[in-house]
Amino acid sequence: MLRKLPTSQERFSYSFIKLANVRDKKKPATSDWRAKVHEVIYEADTRAGKNFDIILLVAILLSVLVVMLESVTWINEELSWFFQPLEWVLTVLFTLEYILRIVCIRKPWSYIFSFYGIIDLLSLLPTYISLFFTGTHSLAVIRSIRLLRVFRIFKLAQFLSEATTIMKALRNSRYKISVFMLGVLMIVIIMGTVMYLVEGGPDSNFDSIPRSIYWAIITLTTVGYGDISPVTALGQAISSIVMIFGYAILAVPTGIVTNEFIKSAGDKSNNTQACPNCSLEGHDDDAKFCKFCGSEL
Amino acid sequence: MLRKLPTSQERFSYSFIKLANVRDKKKPATSDWRAKVHEVIYEADTRAGKNFDIILLVAILLSVLVVMLESVTWINEELSWFFQPLEWVLTVLFTLEYILRIVCIRKPWSYIFSFYGIIDLLSLLPTYISLFFTGTHSLAVIRSIRLLRVFRIFKLAQFLSEATTIMKALRNSRYKISVFMLGVLMIVIIMGTVMYLVEGGPDSNFDSIPRSIYWAIITLTTVGYGDISPVTALGQAISSIVMIFGYAILAVPTGIVTNEFIKSAGDKSNNTQACPNCSLEGHDDDAKFCKFCGSEL
Amino acid sequence: MLRKLPTSQERFSYSFIKLANVRDKKKPATSDWRAKVHEVIYEADTRAGKNFDIILLVAILLSVLVVMLESVTWINEELSWFFQPLEWVLTVLFTLEYILRIVCIRKPWSYIFSFYGIIDLLSLLPTYISLFFTGTHSLAVIRSIRLLRVFRIFKLAQFLSEATTIMKALRNSRYKISVFMLGVLMIVIIMGTVMYLVEGGPDSNFDSIPRSIYWAIITLTTVGYGDISPVTALGQAISSIVMIFGYAILAVPTGIVTNEFIKSAGDKSNNTQACPNCSLEGHDDDAKFCKFCGSEL
Amino acid sequence: MLRKLPTSQERFSYSFIKLANVRDKKKPATSDWRAKVHEVIYEADTRAGKNFDIILLVAILLSVLVVMLESVTWINEELSWFFQPLEWVLTVLFTLEYILRIVCIRKPWSYIFSFYGIIDLLSLLPTYISLFFTGTHSLAVIRSIRLLRVFRIFKLAQFLSEATTIMKALRNSRYKISVFMLGVLMIVIIMGTVMYLVEGGPDSNFDSIPRSIYWAIITLTTVGYGDISPVTALGQAISSIVMIFGYAILAVPTGIVTNEFIKSAGDKSNNTQACPNCSLEGHDDDAKFCKFCGSEL
Repeated sequence: MLRKLPTSQERFSYSFIKLANVRDKKKPATSDWRAKVHEVIYEADTRAGKNFDIILLVAILLSVLVVMLESVTWINEELSWFFQPLEWVLTVLFTLEYILRIVCIRKPWSYIFSFYGIIDLLSLLPTYISLFFTGTHSLAVIRSIRLLRVFRIFKLAQFLSEATTIMKALRNSRYKISVFMLGVLMIVIIMGTVMYLVEGGPDSNFDSIPRSIYWAIITLTTVGYGDISPVTALGQAISSIVMIFGYAILAVPTGIVTNEFIKSAGDKSNNTQACPNCSLEGHDDDAKFCKFCGSEL
Repeated sequence: MLRKLPTSQERFSYSFIKLANVRDKKKPATSDWRAKVHEVIYEADTRAGKNFDIILLVAILLSVLVVMLESVTWINEELSWFFQPLEWVLTVLFTLEYILRIVCIRKPWSYIFSFYGIIDLLSLLPTYISLFFTGTHSLAVIRSIRLLRVFRIFKLAQFLSEATTIMKALRNSRYKISVFMLGVLMIVIIMGTVMYLVEGGPDSNFDSIPRSIYWAIITLTTVGYGDISPVTALGQAISSIVMIFGYAILAVPTGIVTNEFIKSAGDKSNNTQACPNCSLEGHDDDAKFCKFCGSEL
Repeated sequence: MLRKLPTSQERFSYSFIKLANVRDKKKPATSDWRAKVHEVIYEADTRAGKNFDIILLVAILLSVLVVMLESVTWINEELSWFFQPLEWVLTVLFTLEYILRIVCIRKPWSYIFSFYGIIDLLSLLPTYISLFFTGTHSLAVIRSIRLLRVFRIFKLAQFLSEATTIMKALRNSRYKISVFMLGVLMIVIIMGTVMYLVEGGPDSNFDSIPRSIYWAIITLTTVGYGDISPVTALGQAISSIVMIFGYAILAVPTGIVTNEFIKSAGDKSNNTQACPNCSLEGHDDDAKFCKFCGSEL
Repeated sequence: MLRKLPTSQERFSYSFIKLANVRDKKKPATSDWRAKVHEVIYEADTRAGKNFDIILLVAILLSVLVVMLESVTWINEELSWFFQPLEWVLTVLFTLEYILRIVCIRKPWSYIFSFYGIIDLLSLLPTYISLFFTGTHSLAVIRSIRLLRVFRIFKLAQFLSEATTIMKALRNSRYKISVFMLGVLMIVIIMGTVMYLVEGGPDSNFDSIPRSIYWAIITLTTVGYGDISPVTALGQAISSIVMIFGYAILAVPTGIVTNEFIKSAGDKSNNTQACPNCSLEGHDDDAKFCKFCGSEL
């Protein structure tokens, strides 16, 4: 019988921060303080672990906000006296966290070369590199790399059960979606080429096939910037077909994903308990007696 | 067993105005006229209550229309002789209603500090405040607050059973939708930053990360204003990816909500048979024995 | 037991033209030729009736095409020698049909004042009226009324079983969709007003509340013309919220209608036949023996 | 009984290249080398056949890329020394393949006049024709025909089981989608005409009915280029209605296709048990007796 699932509310509030490298559940026990730090950083069962995750989340969000606002010229000019020290404080904090993560784990290299380990490192470096650089634009590029920290929120969020459900539905439908994408790609190549032949010309916006394909993508996905749009009657007629087509086939990915959600919802409510008397299955989770023969389950 | 549900038609026409502070069903009985007024204002079972709700709805719609039209310069200039008195009549009416609501309820403060109580008050004040103000723009701002009256339609509409079904489906999927939104947010932050690095520059439209994120939102949601659009080949290629991505992941919220609608539809069609022995409900259609107590159905 | 349903193919090809005023199935039998004409015009069971419907469909499409092309100045100038006689031939044909419809039906007034009767008449008049008019623009307006003939295709198409399924799903979800629309309306009013306060001003595009609401509709529905778009940072932030909101709540009508399609698909496959021996139901349409007790159905 | 289906992963990787003219499974056996070539080209069971398909896929993708890049003026100018020989190599390769396909098949004409046979030929000719042509634009047109090679990817991809599922869902819903399209067509004709009457005029963008219909399509499908947009208040009001309508009825194709996906998912999970007596399949999971012959399962 399935364990009683926690209510949605519970799952959302509690599991948000269940940041856990589950494989490391058995603590290293090398030394006392390392085991303690490991528990705080890699697990979220204790109060200290939870608080650590919350502080980390706030620090990441703050740091992302700073990187974003720094890119706005007038904000940066007025507030750089505030942003620069804040950035250094946050970077030192993240560096400390990075070092602690390496120190307290049993197999440091498995963390360092994991996806999130690389992200953690890459989002630290730019601040240090910026000490040696002075060129404005190349600096901007380097400093923007710090936004990779956004991925660290993913790391925190991936333990949300809701994210799991969504990712599962997307993963189950990934081949169908890929094939759909392949179909969309062919349609935009063909329609783009047709438009290049119909509207093309040196003064037209449809001056090359890749550009016409770009137009076809804009139109098929119903984005419709309007930076490239047909001017001839025939071009507008073809354009109309692409639009209606894009409008209608949006139903395909939706159908695929919806189907997966419904399937996984159905799986959850499955109960595989069999009646001890008549061996029949299909009982509800709250059933105490077999609904076919009346004997106790 | 569930009562036979009214037909869709009935539910739509009758329950529209079942404006009811259900907790106050037991009338205060302080004095005769208060009880009477309470019945008219807070309930919709009597003919007077229904009529009151309809008059209120018309007054709100009329008042919303006036506020909207007043903001159009030429209409306001030509019709202000008509709008001003009408606005005063409506405001006095709403004020009267507000006072009556406070007077006839047993616990006035619970109404005054409720969401709708504050809305009711806030949508009254601007007209009175406008007596003391003369600055054109600040007046426009203040007068626009009256549009909060639109929320009062929500108060009337929330008893519609259709609204309940929709709200239930949205409430059930709120955590999944939130997680999806979080994912969308990260995607637009990352893609916006990438575009800022690719297309950015002092003369470009992608002159800061927040602006680039704004572009990413416009593109991912397939809105596509066209006020900011990429000009370099690489930028257009990245843009294409964002578009196709936005086109495909639209399937996710749709799948989530559709799943909820189907689930709640399934709940409705449940067997309403009660066990003759233990009186519990929730049996399957093909059940022969009560699944709770084992007695024959 | 349900009758074996025709295959999709059959239903599509045969029923397309089952133009039938079903209530008149019992022929009037007033006179021989009238009965015959009635059969040809109002029914589609005979070969003559089917041919009549096909000719009518072609004539309507041709006439709609002519009206559309006449509105293009250069096409009209070059081809008016061809369009004018063609239009007259078609109009005389439709007039003849209109008269025959009235003559051969038992209760002419019920046809004349029916929705399609009025459409039929209104789409005839403009050609005759254009004889007495000479003003170019008013003439264009009057002549455009002929496009009402498009509705006559609806009359032919409404007997398509596919159209019936779609219309049924839409009709079943009409209250939910209406409530959703009401919600959308309130959101666009509130967001439009907010944008009017944030972006408004004499030189702005958000110069009145109705115009701002128009912008909110363009944005929420993800159309995104770009003729009105926010320029301030705050305006763009609010705009982003409206976009993401519009992107997400598109799931609501989709969920409602999908649910209806699934429900109606489920209804079709229901078989209410009970086993004569054990009285159990739930058998497939092609079952010959009870699947629970094995006795013949 | 159905064979155990391969896992999604297997199906995706292996069946991608199961290029097979299944009807020709029984090999011609005319001569040894022909049979061998037939096996390599038309089938994908052997290692040689798989490798052939992969090489073909790469050659097609390469050739499509070249055609696309050639159309970009500056790329073509710089890289024509590379593109021209590559194009000739690829064309000779495809010509060879075309000849081999004809030679090794038993009924050459059935291939030559099949859809893919014509595509194969048409995508070869332009390179040879370009030897005799010199006009730049007509040459561009002719050379673009080579992009028809994209269809050859379809030929390879149509054996993907994912593509089969999607195509089946679309094929099952083709009549419903057609009827929906018919409805959309009528709506855009009517709304386009209305806008032509409201906004039309010599200086307006709505200067003819076809152009107004083009606008209606842009708006209803939520593409929204913005090249044509209403300027009068009434036009914007009508426009708003079209937008909200287009936003809401997107639910219809989605509902249709989702329903088909769910139905076909349901079909897959069917019981594959065959009756030991009559060998018929299609029994329910809870069936104890064959529903066709009544013998115990």
